[in-house]
Amino acid sequence: MENLKLALLGFGNAGQAFCRLLLEKQDEIRDTYKTDVTVTAIATASKGNIHDPEGIDLEAALEDVSTEGRFSERHRLTQLSTMELARQADYDVLVEMTPLNIFTGQPAADHIKTAFSRKKHAITANKGPVAWFFRELAEMAREAGVCFFYETTVMDGTPVFNLVENTLKMAKVTEVSGILNSTTNFILEELALGADYDDIMERGRSLGFIEADPAMDIEGYDAAAKITALLNVLMDARITPDQVKRKGIEDITVNDIKDAASRGKVIKLLCRGVRKDDGSVEATVGPAEVSKDDILAGINSTTSIVSITTDLMKKVSIIEHEPEIEQTAYGVFGDLLRVLDNAAIKK
Amino acid sequence: MENLKLALLGFGNAGQAFCRLLLEKQDEIRDTYKTDVTVTAIATASKGNIHDPEGIDLEAALEDVSTEGRFSERHRLTQLSTMELARQADYDVLVEMTPLNIFTGQPAADHIKTAFSRKKHAITANKGPVAWFFRELAEMAREAGVCFFYETTVMDGTPVFNLVENTLKMAKVTEVSGILNSTTNFILEELALGADYDDIMERGRSLGFIEADPAMDIEGYDAAAKITALLNVLMDARITPDQVKRKGIEDITVNDIKDAASRGKVIKLLCRGVRKDDGSVEATVGPAEVSKDDILAGINSTTSIVSITTDLMKKVSIIEHEPEIEQTAYGVFGDLLRVLDNAAIKK
Repeated sequence: MENLKLALLGFGNAGQAFCRLLLEKQDEIRDTYKTDVTVTAIATASKGNIHDPEGIDLEAALEDVSTEGRFSERHRLTQLSTMELARQADYDVLVEMTPLNIFTGQPAADHIKTAFSRKKHAITANKGPVAWFFRELAEMAREAGVCFFYETTVMDGTPVFNLVENTLKMAKVTEVSGILNSTTNFILEELALGADYDDIMERGRSLGFIEADPAMDIEGYDAAAKITALLNVLMDARITPDQVKRKGIEDITVNDIKDAASRGKVIKLLCRGVRKDDGSVEATVGPAEVSKDDILAGINSTTSIVSITTDLMKKVSIIEHEPEIEQTAYGVFGDLLRVLDNAAIKK
Repeated sequence: MENLKLALLGFGNAGQAFCRLLLEKQDEIRDTYKTDVTVTAIATASKGNIHDPEGIDLEAALEDVSTEGRFSERHRLTQLSTMELARQADYDVLVEMTPLNIFTGQPAADHIKTAFSRKKHAITANKGPVAWFFRELAEMAREAGVCFFYETTVMDGTPVFNLVENTLKMAKVTEVSGILNSTTNFILEELALGADYDDIMERGRSLGFIEADPAMDIEGYDAAAKITALLNVLMDARITPDQVKRKGIEDITVNDIKDAASRGKVIKLLCRGVRKDDGSVEATVGPAEVSKDDILAGINSTTSIVSITTDLMKKVSIIEHEPEIEQTAYGVFGDLLRVLDNAAIKK
């Protein structure tokens, strides 16, 4: 039996759901890969940090957090910081799930670079590093001979990157588009149904669809980061989120929506990237009218869609229907299985 | 440089498009896999048969068919039948593209069995064998240690089988549904727009959306074969198309469609398979009303959709937008790349 050690940076809702999934599937992983997956480090902002090379008791860690809000003394607590754990902890795979800084991709990108400098694999659920530093990180991973996986960064565990990488072999991506931000999608839908803006915000917050500060969503920054990540990976775009022609839904009025409806249209916040004649990739995020008969008009609430056009398969779209936190966890879990697959092939 | 030899059974539009793609990509395959892919046998019903272990000149074969409608004497023509070529020809991969027999899956399934009995790989674009004989064929392939790929049998090269196999690892499929027959989809859409039935049939035939004898589509047999193939592969359903609860659109009237429209609905021919409490899989094909706001209502013309529900990723859908024959060819081509990938891993 082999052993694969994970360091989890971040232990929020997604990190906890990932650990529950890991516990649920540990026997199946053992059977399939002849490998024990253990978590040897957990770094958090407010729950304490743990480093235990012999493997953290995940059930106890989950219980501590749900009852006390922080890790108890029964774990090997450490004063090492998140970055120090990335540098010094005993692990094979770094799992980056710290909070996103949408304007810099840091310090998440530095955590991952640290892992690669130690020839450790990295999985990120944080889209910042893929949006801001994809090329550099991919290059470092290749040179170190390690895996770098990031499926969760766009549409949770729905295969988007892996769809192209694993199932559309030799096809060249010429265009990517989609509806990628559920907050704005929810707001536009509710406005169209006649709801009042303040009520929408209150309801959205209670449903967990809208953040306490929704500006990053409403002004299109989140969508810009996602389309950038997609274009960097799928089209080698070599762009950063600040290069996206970005417009949010902040100026869309109820009248705009009614006016569109009178013409059989709905307004959606669309993301798009397309290769220009000079070879560069132009990325845009902005509200656009789509026909009520269009598939895009049916993408409502937290459902999202990515359409990928390639030279050989024309346009193929993939839809994630109303995901919950377990689908985010599955994205990280799927990437972990891919690390295990690669390790198996190398043997 | 390795050599991989293909025997093509069938050389209709899809087979010819596949050969054009092979010619276009031969250098890229050489670079990527260090392998020369050659076609050593082509079997047809009306264009003649060729067997040339040194490799058929595909450009010449394509030219012959487009100018003369049959292979000329410049090829090594043979009197061997399709089945005799499957048995005796010099090949590594059998590519099954003969016409579908939707009621038996034969003789296509026997061609594939013959390949497996010779420890040769098989790729099928013909859904009959997957709908009627999947379990037996998959078992034979496993015992022979060869590849059996069939991505093209549902939605051309759009990843459906590979989506689950390669990107939704360890997730268990609990339900599959979709709109899989473009002929009925086109007819229902046109009827809803107010077109006359005879006009629709004429227009559909001229566009190539409707077969000379459309009964297999209209009565739901094609959709039943497709959902059976999906369920056999993705849910180990172990069913045959005759076990599908099947209803076509033959009884749908313009009044039904208008009545549905008055209630904000459209009629679609839906396929569905779901696991029952006793562990068996129940498959249905039949017309159903869907809300005009539903994503399914936006699936028009030759566009199709499959939705796959799993325990770990809930519902994910994939859409193929208005495919042409090149997308069918890409399905076979993608399967060929997978055979090459497997060969590379084994080394």
